[in-house]
Amino acid sequence: MPEKATTAECLCIGDELLIGQTVNTNAAWMGEQLSLIGIRPVLTRVVGDNPERIREALSTATADVVLITGGLGPTKDDITKHVLSDFFGMKLVHHPAVEAHITALFTRMGRDPREVKQADLAQAMLPADCTVLPNELGTASGMWFDRAGRVFVSMPGVPYEMEGLMTASVLPKLKERFRPANILHRTIKTTGMGETQLAQRIADWETGLALDDVALAYLPSPGLVKLRLSTYAGLDPEEARERIDRQAAALYKLVPELIYGEGRLRLEEAIGLLLKERGYTLALAESCTGGYLSHLVTSVPGSSAYYIGGVVSYANAVKMVELGIPSDMLELNGAVSKPVVERMAEGVRQALRSDWAVATTGVAGPEGGTPEKPVGTVWLAVAGPDGVTSSVGVFMGTRPLVIRRSAIAALNMLRKRLLKAQKAVPQL
Amino acid sequence: MPEKATTAECLCIGDELLIGQTVNTNAAWMGEQLSLIGIRPVLTRVVGDNPERIREALSTATADVVLITGGLGPTKDDITKHVLSDFFGMKLVHHPAVEAHITALFTRMGRDPREVKQADLAQAMLPADCTVLPNELGTASGMWFDRAGRVFVSMPGVPYEMEGLMTASVLPKLKERFRPANILHRTIKTTGMGETQLAQRIADWETGLALDDVALAYLPSPGLVKLRLSTYAGLDPEEARERIDRQAAALYKLVPELIYGEGRLRLEEAIGLLLKERGYTLALAESCTGGYLSHLVTSVPGSSAYYIGGVVSYANAVKMVELGIPSDMLELNGAVSKPVVERMAEGVRQALRSDWAVATTGVAGPEGGTPEKPVGTVWLAVAGPDGVTSSVGVFMGTRPLVIRRSAIAALNMLRKRLLKAQKAVPQL
Repeated sequence: MPEKATTAECLCIGDELLIGQTVNTNAAWMGEQLSLIGIRPVLTRVVGDNPERIREALSTATADVVLITGGLGPTKDDITKHVLSDFFGMKLVHHPAVEAHITALFTRMGRDPREVKQADLAQAMLPADCTVLPNELGTASGMWFDRAGRVFVSMPGVPYEMEGLMTASVLPKLKERFRPANILHRTIKTTGMGETQLAQRIADWETGLALDDVALAYLPSPGLVKLRLSTYAGLDPEEARERIDRQAAALYKLVPELIYGEGRLRLEEAIGLLLKERGYTLALAESCTGGYLSHLVTSVPGSSAYYIGGVVSYANAVKMVELGIPSDMLELNGAVSKPVVERMAEGVRQALRSDWAVATTGVAGPEGGTPEKPVGTVWLAVAGPDGVTSSVGVFMGTRPLVIRRSAIAALNMLRKRLLKAQKAVPQL
Repeated sequence: MPEKATTAECLCIGDELLIGQTVNTNAAWMGEQLSLIGIRPVLTRVVGDNPERIREALSTATADVVLITGGLGPTKDDITKHVLSDFFGMKLVHHPAVEAHITALFTRMGRDPREVKQADLAQAMLPADCTVLPNELGTASGMWFDRAGRVFVSMPGVPYEMEGLMTASVLPKLKERFRPANILHRTIKTTGMGETQLAQRIADWETGLALDDVALAYLPSPGLVKLRLSTYAGLDPEEARERIDRQAAALYKLVPELIYGEGRLRLEEAIGLLLKERGYTLALAESCTGGYLSHLVTSVPGSSAYYIGGVVSYANAVKMVELGIPSDMLELNGAVSKPVVERMAEGVRQALRSDWAVATTGVAGPEGGTPEKPVGTVWLAVAGPDGVTSSVGVFMGTRPLVIRRSAIAALNMLRKRLLKAQKAVPQL
């Protein structure tokens, strides 16, 4: 990134961050978003709910952009807007549009507008001379101050409210205000291979990236590895686009089976698209994933178009009654076994009359492991119009990680089956 | 908070933190540990792998303790020790004991000592006049500088190495060096009332906290509000404990129905304890929460002791087949209705033969809302030995938030029913 890049710092306010009751995910999120539009984060500061500390941080800020989070709630320890209006030499004035928004928000929640409290209405008192950024998800508005070539933006500390404000107004306004140097990213999302092994497999391709001035970042998370390609050079946009697309195409050729999508597309969304495309329906039978797989599938808006439903068969009795698993099969093989997982998938597919079904059964831990079936052992099955397949894995980590990793692996197994079915039968 | 408390700041070094590739969990962990021994964290700064930025942060530090993490690895971008030795006007000198440790570490890892690279041995070059803190878990030693009444400690950024150093040497040395005043926290967790309304309800109690020198912080997250009580005063430990316990007891009297636990206990764990205590079992029937409720319940280790299983009835057909809901009931009232949610809870309780059952049905959005049943409308029901109860709410926010908030509300409804049942029938 060139030295002349627009710089940014984050100022995060809240005692809970300093004393470690809350991990500062906001700074990471904002840093990533700023980088993506070509603004360089150079400093993050965290201070407590303390006017002198906040004022000192404001007065020593040197970056072009200062993103401030926290301290905008309706309670006594929320002091950011008072410190800001004082710092910029402004008064707090009543903003009728903000009050109308707060009242509407309460009405939408089904509460009597007369219940709106003084503390809530006080959220409509904002500095006189700032641009108010509407917060669709809460009562605390964002504030944009443009002073002597520097932009200060104040946002609530609640992550989803901050993210909503950043996406809807702050990032677009920053792009317009600073016109940061051209920067291009393309993020290719993979699953089914760990970071180290993947890095080995694509090592030669990675070496070749330098010739095109394309930078690569590995962004691993449990079960997934995102590969972000970036051009930082001050190229003309078309040339930059061409280089990044050429390298992406080469990567697709190298590891076609690992790539499930790009950008913000989640694996469960990719699967939703595959199902919708063919008018297929899906059912789930979960043991060790305990509803998490169903939660991933239904987290996608519009999933009711293809998701019929599922059974969480935690007790063996449920496996027998709801999924038709014979008790001698359970006794002979144990609940964590190939015959049981396959029967679970077939059972829920029949019971709910779906085209496809996925089943999981395993040992999520921390208790329940044996020498033959240690914690992390999970059987997965996919049943479909062309039969049932299954596989077993030993997934590493704590209970939430075993659940997450095995759910991702189950979705990936379904994805591969759907792609195979797509190839086998030409679409009408 | 008295101004005389020993203060600390964290200086975290690394580009990956600024651009959001890594979330800064180190600062949270160190802040918590410092608070627990009575040292007050007042500032966290994150800077990149940039000597000027690091030097500037060092020279503007004002706290008694400066904890520095990161930039101690064997690669080129690891510059912390060079900047530190330069800042303190020292040379780097060879520390034979550290070299012996590095060689021993390689042997322990099963690697040939001849494989030890020059870059690894360079880790034994450390500032001449500092206390070297041995790092049992890696090659980067900690460094302790005591200068003009201020202590600077440099540690590696790898979380488990930093935590090992903090626990083994930094925290004990800080206690000895500063003998910090006693500090106590107690975190009381509530659900069922928003932050604003709760603040009003306990306003008088909050005002009275000052008399006991107890500080209060509201820590809201979707569906929950944590209340953290702290005494920072230089009291003797018993007096501090007494004050904080007295105020906590008063809070319990004020809002008994809202408090589900303390400290790290999650709502789903609190419910697990209530169920286990009585040997009760639980089943779930989920529509709009789509498996998330089941996921929360099964995220608790050992939940298989009381959780039998559940049905995710996304399609109406599943509600009919698996839960025995008459089709005319669905037609007459719609799936999002009081009769349907009550029948779902009763149906799954019968089908899975559990003591208790919880059901959800609603409009998670973003599509599917109507004027009578807008997005966020969710019916909840709890069926138990003493019958079925239900309620409706309109939950705010995006799809994941409606799902999260309605699941929390459903768990809270179950919690209240379990407490009522506990009172009604004396425990044997």
